[in-house]
Amino acid sequence: MKKARIGIDLGGTKIYAVVVDETDKVIGKAKSPTPSGATVADTAVVMLETAKAAAKLAGVRFSAFKNIGVAMPGAVTENSDLVFGAHNLGWNGVPAKAEFEKWFGKPVALGNDVNCGVLAEARLGAGKGAETVIGFFMGTGLGGGVVLNGKLLTGSHGLAGEFGHVIIRKNGRQCSCGHKGCLEAYASKVGMAAKFQELINNRGEKSLLTEYIAGDFSKLKSSALAKAYKAGDKVTMEVLDKAAYSLGLGAASVAAVIDPDRIVFGGGVIEALGKKLMSFIRKGFDEHLFALRPEQIELTVSELGDDAVALGATLL
Amino acid sequence: MKKARIGIDLGGTKIYAVVVDETDKVIGKAKSPTPSGATVADTAVVMLETAKAAAKLAGVRFSAFKNIGVAMPGAVTENSDLVFGAHNLGWNGVPAKAEFEKWFGKPVALGNDVNCGVLAEARLGAGKGAETVIGFFMGTGLGGGVVLNGKLLTGSHGLAGEFGHVIIRKNGRQCSCGHKGCLEAYASKVGMAAKFQELINNRGEKSLLTEYIAGDFSKLKSSALAKAYKAGDKVTMEVLDKAAYSLGLGAASVAAVIDPDRIVFGGGVIEALGKKLMSFIRKGFDEHLFALRPEQIELTVSELGDDAVALGATLL
Repeated sequence: MKKARIGIDLGGTKIYAVVVDETDKVIGKAKSPTPSGATVADTAVVMLETAKAAAKLAGVRFSAFKNIGVAMPGAVTENSDLVFGAHNLGWNGVPAKAEFEKWFGKPVALGNDVNCGVLAEARLGAGKGAETVIGFFMGTGLGGGVVLNGKLLTGSHGLAGEFGHVIIRKNGRQCSCGHKGCLEAYASKVGMAAKFQELINNRGEKSLLTEYIAGDFSKLKSSALAKAYKAGDKVTMEVLDKAAYSLGLGAASVAAVIDPDRIVFGGGVIEALGKKLMSFIRKGFDEHLFALRPEQIELTVSELGDDAVALGATLL
Repeated sequence: MKKARIGIDLGGTKIYAVVVDETDKVIGKAKSPTPSGATVADTAVVMLETAKAAAKLAGVRFSAFKNIGVAMPGAVTENSDLVFGAHNLGWNGVPAKAEFEKWFGKPVALGNDVNCGVLAEARLGAGKGAETVIGFFMGTGLGGGVVLNGKLLTGSHGLAGEFGHVIIRKNGRQCSCGHKGCLEAYASKVGMAAKFQELINNRGEKSLLTEYIAGDFSKLKSSALAKAYKAGDKVTMEVLDKAAYSLGLGAASVAAVIDPDRIVFGGGVIEALGKKLMSFIRKGFDEHLFALRPEQIELTVSELGDDAVALGATLL
């Protein structure tokens, strides 16, 4: 029998299960849509089917897995009794671990989704070989994670690595969390959408982006941003370059807390525009990093793409 | 033979050695002035004498200590080969550990001084009983530390917990480190001195402080600040209250990274004005903390005073 492990990425729109072998290679994977507005029990049923489908493709009997790792949104630690703030599942204060264990019939380790993505990058991807890794994932929001000697820092309430809510500007831009000046208000799709609207709708600047997204800034896709950027669109370049600079500044702030030896940047836009955005991230970082020997911290782009979160779940 | 331990606080002006018993109670202590501009070897000789004096008062033979903890400024981890950035000792890139071990004739564990102070508070002082503790010490600069399950986070280069260089305002006040917008530029004696000079010298505001410090803002003593504050001096209250608010904002930023269950605030001014400043720290914190259940993080004032750093050294 192979020593396989299984992890599930439970997202707001899809459930993604992967099975890896003892070398962490993906040997089976399966996807299902997340049932909309469902209870934990109903969701667990779909997760179980998806996990079994992935196991079948991997040629591993489901009963052979000793336990299951589940990456999900919200404030979670490996042993959380209750999960708070899993808003895109509509869950707040639910006993997810106990419910999953009941349905799966085996121990479940929970992890925050972005934390798990960073864990996978740290151990299997762009952070491989480093001792202390922090990761920033720029998507709709801005998430992150801290990995110390291969182990995730979850914090006391499952809220470690919430880099989107590090304050980079006292009295700065309004963040969707209700506070002002959060990194997420500058370096995320939500933050950039506000800036695009200001420039295009209020100040009348012209941008290719308007056409690419059909004027709907609430659906700012990474692909559209990358396309407009690559086409040399002035407004898109300005907004993305500034967001990248702010991200670098935020990374320098977090580095003053954690002192990592490697920092991984991920998320659709960054992966698509890699080197171009990295020069602005690097500029914001270098101009704000407190360090005696700054060249000791390596900045890299994530490597695992969409598999990262589920892979991280296999490592819990 | 008692199971005693010894720690040395090697500061820019004094060397302070403490001996504790197995219950962490101080049973002997001794002080010497730090030899000015001395080499590591010459300093080690004075440290050894001081340590022996503390041991004698404690009734413990120096040869009975298995090892010695040394807390010092700069970028240091327990096993640093070279210590960088110990500027107030005039050392940069020195083999402190090897030199100390040669003179002491036993293993030496090194730690950053402020980190050690936070470690002691976390295990023996205001952080006792908590799982994840961060500490902010406001003195000439602003230092900090992270303690996870009783263990110090040193980071990859001995620079973890440098909370003074978390950026709280993009393009903000100039910091002595060369960057802009660092927390230290707002919440430290150096940062406050700049603000006092602006208000008193440039804008002509009147303050009791001018008299207390004889007009020399480079020597802003905590005692003078506390005295002026308690006397109701408007300028002093305004500057200190704002610094405390900024400190709370910075603590919220760091909490988004670490997710602690307790935060300890220390340093002369904060210890002297405790409750008064804590209300402003709390305001800055509450207005910026990303949390699902904010009441889960406790804010406290340090308890160990001047002994903290040396006590932390005994715990390395």
